Amino acid sequence: MRGEVEQALDQRLRFDAGCPERLSEAMRYAVLAPGKRLRPLLAMLAAKACGGTIERAMPAACAVEMIHAYSLVHDDLPAMDDDDLRRGMPTCHRKFDEATAILVGDALQARAFEVLATELTPASVAARACAALGQAAGATLLVGGQADDLAGAAENNSRERLEAIHHRKTAAMILVSLELGALTAEASDTFRTALAEYGRRFGLVFQITDDLLDAHGQEQQVGKRLGKDAEHGKLTYVTLVGVDESRRLVAQLVDEAIAALAPLGEKAEPLKLLARMLVDRKK
Amino acid sequence: MRGEVEQALDQRLRFDAGCPERLSEAMRYAVLAPGKRLRPLLAMLAAKACGGTIERAMPAACAVEMIHAYSLVHDDLPAMDDDDLRRGMPTCHRKFDEATAILVGDALQARAFEVLATELTPASVAARACAALGQAAGATLLVGGQADDLAGAAENNSRERLEAIHHRKTAAMILVSLELGALTAEASDTFRTALAEYGRRFGLVFQITDDLLDAHGQEQQVGKRLGKDAEHGKLTYVTLVGVDESRRLVAQLVDEAIAALAPLGEKAEPLKLLARMLVDRKK
Repeated sequence: MRGEVEQALDQRLRFDAGCPERLSEAMRYAVLAPGKRLRPLLAMLAAKACGGTIERAMPAACAVEMIHAYSLVHDDLPAMDDDDLRRGMPTCHRKFDEATAILVGDALQARAFEVLATELTPASVAARACAALGQAAGATLLVGGQADDLAGAAENNSRERLEAIHHRKTAAMILVSLELGALTAEASDTFRTALAEYGRRFGLVFQITDDLLDAHGQEQQVGKRLGKDAEHGKLTYVTLVGVDESRRLVAQLVDEAIAALAPLGEKAEPLKLLARMLVDRKK
Repeated sequence: MRGEVEQALDQRLRFDAGCPERLSEAMRYAVLAPGKRLRPLLAMLAAKACGGTIERAMPAACAVEMIHAYSLVHDDLPAMDDDDLRRGMPTCHRKFDEATAILVGDALQARAFEVLATELTPASVAARACAALGQAAGATLLVGGQADDLAGAAENNSRERLEAIHHRKTAAMILVSLELGALTAEASDTFRTALAEYGRRFGLVFQITDDLLDAHGQEQQVGKRLGKDAEHGKLTYVTLVGVDESRRLVAQLVDEAIAALAPLGEKAEPLKLLARMLVDRKK
């Protein structure tokens, strides 16, 4: 399924002669680098779980991955997290330059909305998808979470604040991936609510396991510089509640996520499997 | 009409407690600073010219202004044009900081699409508007134009290349403003074509008069540092064909723009007036 997504992304990142070559090269570099494609996978599996098809969900899968890729490119910029390595490769501004990396992010965001608006049918689904993505990627969620994360490395390190940042930086895009997939299947409210309940737990599990990897992973396997959370005095689950409690929390959340999928029946099996796989991820 | 736009923008840039205060303050700073509101005006006048209403066009007017404001914030960044002054005030990264300015642009773009997708009706209009804006703001047009502009200050200064950059950086957003206004009025293809013909000339006139202002305007009146085109060895109409030929070209293009509006009849009078006003603009 990952191969299908990568082919679909590749097709949607070919621009005509009007696009400067260096820009399109950098956009393709940012999106087509090896990745887990977790958000596209969630969109496609959500669509399937609601009785839809992967084919109809593909534009949504591509759009969420473009937004994700753009947010990584901008987060890595010198003015933000100042990272040199991403997915085991030089970050976009390192490989190209800072101006190009800013423009890559800007253009990827526009492309994500264009893909949803032009490819999803009927128009009511396209409009609802653009609205949902606009909100998830906007000032109160994705971008707001990054702003808060940058602002408050050392202050007010409560669990409440930690969860608020994660909810916005990570969970919101996971939730909207599931929601867009469900929209393409024109799912019922019951199904969409079940997916949202699953998504909330899934997002937290993803974040906590990310913190665990940062603290104890193998740098080469994870593909980015590790230990930087501690180095920056950054708030994480591991620094806040410790490794054991973090692991316990993960196990509990995975059980809850799986339970939430009950209304969807057998078609949701792949989503259950995915939640279980998160626990043991190595990158 | 400008007051109505500014009130509408103000309403759409109030975020709930989930949005970091500094981010929303910076977004409002970037958008609500004094400006010509040219693109919203074009959207609203295009809607009126096609028999629509300002009220229905307002979400489109706000969306194009948000995209315009975001592109200025990013263009001004140190990695790009490195400007300290914009509209007579400190640029966003000067007033706040670089990371905030990057995030302001990112969040404004998302908000623009969210406004179109949630506020325009019917859904078919919302979807077409998101598609048109996504294309105009994307890699081949707005962002691609900026990338080319940054890349090639000194090389291949042909008129062809100059027009290609202007077409993408300036004209594309002017064209899409007219197009979105027409969409909200559910205009006929004849009307939309007439507006596009007008918009192509209008965009060029806007750019050439901008070049003339940069070369000969009063810094205090224009509200930004002047002479920087020449300083950067940047290609402009004035450096390419001279002041007199630039002025002649402007007069010719305004006549053509006005002639193109013929199919729209009397309702297009305000658009004709606007084109004539461009010639004498002081900022």
